[in-house]
Amino acid sequence: MNNFTYQNTTRIHFGKGQIARLERELMPYHKIMLLYGGGSIKQNGVYHQVMQQLKAKQVIEFGGIEANPRYETLMKAVGIARTEQVDFLLAVGGGSVIDGTKFVAAAIPFDAGDPWTILSEYAKFTKALPLGTVLTLPATGSEMNGNAVITREEYRMKLAFGNKMLLPVFSVLDPETMYSLPSRQLANGVADAFVHVMEQYLTYHVNSPVQDRFAEALLLTLIEQGPALLRNPKDYDTCANVMWAATMALNGLIVAGVPDDWATHMIGHELTALHGVDHGQSLCIVLPGVMNQLREQKRGKLLQFAQRVWNIKKDDEQKGIDDAIAATEGFFNSLGIATRLGEYGISPADVDYLCSRLEARDIHWGECKNVDAECVKKILNERL
Amino acid sequence: MNNFTYQNTTRIHFGKGQIARLERELMPYHKIMLLYGGGSIKQNGVYHQVMQQLKAKQVIEFGGIEANPRYETLMKAVGIARTEQVDFLLAVGGGSVIDGTKFVAAAIPFDAGDPWTILSEYAKFTKALPLGTVLTLPATGSEMNGNAVITREEYRMKLAFGNKMLLPVFSVLDPETMYSLPSRQLANGVADAFVHVMEQYLTYHVNSPVQDRFAEALLLTLIEQGPALLRNPKDYDTCANVMWAATMALNGLIVAGVPDDWATHMIGHELTALHGVDHGQSLCIVLPGVMNQLREQKRGKLLQFAQRVWNIKKDDEQKGIDDAIAATEGFFNSLGIATRLGEYGISPADVDYLCSRLEARDIHWGECKNVDAECVKKILNERL
Repeated sequence: MNNFTYQNTTRIHFGKGQIARLERELMPYHKIMLLYGGGSIKQNGVYHQVMQQLKAKQVIEFGGIEANPRYETLMKAVGIARTEQVDFLLAVGGGSVIDGTKFVAAAIPFDAGDPWTILSEYAKFTKALPLGTVLTLPATGSEMNGNAVITREEYRMKLAFGNKMLLPVFSVLDPETMYSLPSRQLANGVADAFVHVMEQYLTYHVNSPVQDRFAEALLLTLIEQGPALLRNPKDYDTCANVMWAATMALNGLIVAGVPDDWATHMIGHELTALHGVDHGQSLCIVLPGVMNQLREQKRGKLLQFAQRVWNIKKDDEQKGIDDAIAATEGFFNSLGIATRLGEYGISPADVDYLCSRLEARDIHWGECKNVDAECVKKILNERL
Repeated sequence: MNNFTYQNTTRIHFGKGQIARLERELMPYHKIMLLYGGGSIKQNGVYHQVMQQLKAKQVIEFGGIEANPRYETLMKAVGIARTEQVDFLLAVGGGSVIDGTKFVAAAIPFDAGDPWTILSEYAKFTKALPLGTVLTLPATGSEMNGNAVITREEYRMKLAFGNKMLLPVFSVLDPETMYSLPSRQLANGVADAFVHVMEQYLTYHVNSPVQDRFAEALLLTLIEQGPALLRNPKDYDTCANVMWAATMALNGLIVAGVPDDWATHMIGHELTALHGVDHGQSLCIVLPGVMNQLREQKRGKLLQFAQRVWNIKKDDEQKGIDDAIAATEGFFNSLGIATRLGEYGISPADVDYLCSRLEARDIHWGECKNVDAECVKKILNERL
């Protein structure tokens, strides 16, 4: 096991009715910016439940945060929040709204130039507004970590940043808020959580049985509960189990003491930035290619994954790995997610262009920093 | 899954050399009380490493905290800490030292009468001194929770209390500090951690696959790594894996959203208070009896435990449960721990006396509050 420091201070209120915790959680604050997405929370009653808790507060609303939250949109929120001098940000939505809110939280007090540099140059910031969340779509784990991914439309770039100051003070996870989600979002969420676990698990052995088995626990749960959720999206327990698995998938716990990869995510971000592929979809396209191209480097963990997660035990190791990759892709397909670039209208020429951009950025991704533009090309070419 | 609120703010520094984090962690504090046990830290070098980090501080030492830390001893520390006006408590040791330090932390500012009432009457307290820990014996999980168990010798009572204010600010977990531990302490630690997991797992189903599989992950790890640790107590990775499993076993995570039992611990505390049986030993004596006596109530989880942890799958369910109980007792024995009361010189008359004390206290233990004095008698009588 590698050395690590682990701390996660976010207070989780999990379960039906837990939105009622907001009033008490917000007691120390006066002027609250309420950030949300396209307005679905106004249809499904979540907005009303939240506003009931905010009666005693000054509330500045900022709706319209997109999937893949855009710098351009978020800077408008930053301007309003500065003018209004809000002292707390409440994100109500999925990972995009929460990620966007984190950027707003960091950008409001940022006074060392253009806040874009927080993303483009990892510019340091020493202050951030406190934030809380009401999660309505399990997927990204953003409700219990300090990370965010932001898109800048004009540059067609999707970049990540993180800081422990951006850990939500609290997050409300009420599985009932999921009842009105469309299948596509549920499927993307399950796939996203699954791949989060894989990024922190499918690397190389460092003798870490607790972390390995925790990761496998989450994978097995998502394989079992994900398709059940799509069949019966209003089953409370299924919603709850997917929600908790997705939160645990990316809150810093399973990665403590082990290497992590993230090549699938990095490549996926490019597909989203250039072609508008949903984040979850992009991961399902890329992961089987990463598993196959890096099968030697990841051999030990691939065999363990095959055996413990898919119950595949073959004398022929290569065949076992093949079967595990096929089972993983089959799982994504069972969620209704297409896993080939062609199915999204992405051509060999598009892959060439994407890789030329990465060539220019001189990337070195993955747990061994050996996923370069050439490697990405191999990965994507087998996903056509 | 049940509703829950979960938060754990303790910062964990895990790995070799992490004692070097102390200097920075202690920067905000001025006068530090250093609490430890029988002095083994002076033999194994841990004391020296810690003192190196405390050079710039005023340090008040308080050694001599016993296994099963005694109220009488701890009140001496409280007196000194008050006189010296220390502003931080640093516990260096195992669960007993850390538990004792938590009581000291709560008792120092307590001004509503005798601090014993914190234990005997769950007296409320609203302040506590901040504390940190350097863990040297994995077992109790006290390094990452707000709970403690304290013994009052004159009453032969061992009582538990807890408060989130007593969560350590930080805990240093360096597996190398374990190298000089005697086998008996290692075995007790593994058994204690194992039973902690069982208390939060072996209850009844509430459809909680993440929590169940996390618990099984810890059980499987302890079954695999525990005996390996006794064979090779200076293997770094084995020490590390047992240490992390023991911390994760009782930090509030696996119990979030599920029922918990604790009858085995409550009964074990009586054996320790009356007969001086080691805490870990007491649990190994009691647990098989709890599993057997409550086999109907715990049937679903017992079968899952049999299958997933011990790979026992029998057509005859009662036989499967019998085998799982035997495997559990066999695991304790494989650690070198005797699991029968007679092996500790405890007689049927002793059991009668113990149960008469519980009768007087009108106990209702366990996840269904149905473990009363009569039930305890059945459990212990089959453990003679």
